[in-house]
Amino acid sequence: MKIQEMIGTDLPLIQAPMAGAQDSALAIAVCEAGGLGSLPCAMLTTDSMRRELAAIRAGTSQPYNVNFFCHTPPEPSDAREVAWRSALAPYYKEFGLDIANIPAGPGRAPFSPETAEVLEEFKPAVVSFHFGLPSPELLARVRRWGAKVLSSATTVEEALWLEAHGADAIIAQGTEAGGHRGHFLSHDLSVQMGTFALVPQIVRAVKVPVIAAGGIAGAQGVAAALALGASAVQVGTAYLLCPEATTSKVHRAALSSDAARHTALTNLFTGRPARGIFNRVMRELGPLSSFAPEFPLATSAITQLRTKAESLGSGDFSPLWSGQNTSGCRDIPAGELTRQLASLIH
Amino acid sequence: MKIQEMIGTDLPLIQAPMAGAQDSALAIAVCEAGGLGSLPCAMLTTDSMRRELAAIRAGTSQPYNVNFFCHTPPEPSDAREVAWRSALAPYYKEFGLDIANIPAGPGRAPFSPETAEVLEEFKPAVVSFHFGLPSPELLARVRRWGAKVLSSATTVEEALWLEAHGADAIIAQGTEAGGHRGHFLSHDLSVQMGTFALVPQIVRAVKVPVIAAGGIAGAQGVAAALALGASAVQVGTAYLLCPEATTSKVHRAALSSDAARHTALTNLFTGRPARGIFNRVMRELGPLSSFAPEFPLATSAITQLRTKAESLGSGDFSPLWSGQNTSGCRDIPAGELTRQLASLIH
Repeated sequence: MKIQEMIGTDLPLIQAPMAGAQDSALAIAVCEAGGLGSLPCAMLTTDSMRRELAAIRAGTSQPYNVNFFCHTPPEPSDAREVAWRSALAPYYKEFGLDIANIPAGPGRAPFSPETAEVLEEFKPAVVSFHFGLPSPELLARVRRWGAKVLSSATTVEEALWLEAHGADAIIAQGTEAGGHRGHFLSHDLSVQMGTFALVPQIVRAVKVPVIAAGGIAGAQGVAAALALGASAVQVGTAYLLCPEATTSKVHRAALSSDAARHTALTNLFTGRPARGIFNRVMRELGPLSSFAPEFPLATSAITQLRTKAESLGSGDFSPLWSGQNTSGCRDIPAGELTRQLASLIH
Repeated sequence: MKIQEMIGTDLPLIQAPMAGAQDSALAIAVCEAGGLGSLPCAMLTTDSMRRELAAIRAGTSQPYNVNFFCHTPPEPSDAREVAWRSALAPYYKEFGLDIANIPAGPGRAPFSPETAEVLEEFKPAVVSFHFGLPSPELLARVRRWGAKVLSSATTVEEALWLEAHGADAIIAQGTEAGGHRGHFLSHDLSVQMGTFALVPQIVRAVKVPVIAAGGIAGAQGVAAALALGASAVQVGTAYLLCPEATTSKVHRAALSSDAARHTALTNLFTGRPARGIFNRVMRELGPLSSFAPEFPLATSAITQLRTKAESLGSGDFSPLWSGQNTSGCRDIPAGELTRQLASLIH
């Protein structure tokens, strides 16, 4: 079975969900062009999630994907928060901000009974997860209306685990990919592989279709990933300059500059490793810091710096999520980009 | 111009030079099958180099590649050697070896006037370099008989530098690749990219042909790399189990096991980061150690442990060089493997 038959699209192409850089508008544009548009829900309240899903339903009759994180929220650690604030204190001083008074920042909520309830109103054709899968009970709720379930694997072991636990297709996320790494069995980043190595090994290990992700940024990349044995591709970074994306001004500027040639995995912005363009705070604190509280608790304290710096036109403290290949980023409508990406598929 | 016309082969396929794991036999087999076989010379004396080149000349009339490192040998540092020996001391004790009495290990000599002189006797069609390019004088000597010059780039910047300094084609070495990283402009490993991201960006940046390397292990991988815009591919790891390779017993065993799923960049074996299968010494000292003397000075002290451990059947202290994708490793003649790798090229 072609993966298009499973997910109901014309094209074997998924727009990667990118929390914080897009909403329903990007998803709709991709769906209308024949790809699978995605709505990332990790940073949405149930109210805004309902609003965005309603917008998709109003904007397209095509199938779409709704994406969730499914981590276990950590116990806050006072000691770690103190260490983190002390690492950030010089920057608070530099900006004249009060480190004793930090409001809760944008969290990252995992898939929950409440979000499942909202989802049931819309019954999306595809639901994708990052960081593994939710509990069997929650997964069963999603399956009840026939949704196909996708999740990301960064190793062969994770792919085997996802297949055994009911994923209908597996996103092989190579190290080139932007944003959060999807790993959930091992936190050792060195076991993760580049797309060229990961895709064929996962294809060989599992029976379900494999979706290649990471470093795919143009029509040749899409064709290459399919030649490598993938059934479909997931493309994120290339969409970040599209007018339908909500990518911030500093983020767009960074993506368009030579700075984008240097990305790194960093836990400074959320507490979990994610790939972003190398910037000042990554350079000065080191991209992977033992001071950063566990995901998503690192977010609150650094967000104050981000907001202040961005108000001054600087991305020095922003998560400038990006894959290692920005050569496909284009300031053109997402539907047009989708058709270009698919132009060498035959 | 097709790259085959430049290098004189039937196939756009180069067997990666793998010092310590192969000699003329592997190169001959690949040449005879239509690929470009390579002889790695980094660990050869001028005498053994002359002998191996004579063997190639006797074994095939096809063009072949001769490969050299071109690093600047470092000044030995007594302090660093002391720190290194103290890190290795517990292992010397474990094996009952005398750490005060370490013979010089297998070095890694850079391309030199002496090696150029030997090379002039054979006038190989292709000469490839790792870690940049040799001096303009030495490069001119190689060019005198019309040899085409290749070198590895791990970033777009390095590709631009190599093109500007006279490389005829550029090997885009993605992070998936096994063995030594070819970087020479920056030692920051985080600027290096996966093959899927690196190849299209280098293709876009330079005018010379680009050879994709890293994670390519089968016919689909070869086809995918060409679809990505590469003019040719360089494959190493897949050849390591071929009977013509001189891969050690412990190395073959590791490549054939699940242990091969976990590789890492390590400087423990030579002083320069190289990708190998994760083993005991990498786990216990950390794969990247600040104690390891500069390349290639780390080699001597650890080689005693390697030799002793291998005599006991263990690869705990061996450089088990491997890319991230061993799915193509096959114990079949290298000519047959070459034809299989090329079977989807059209």
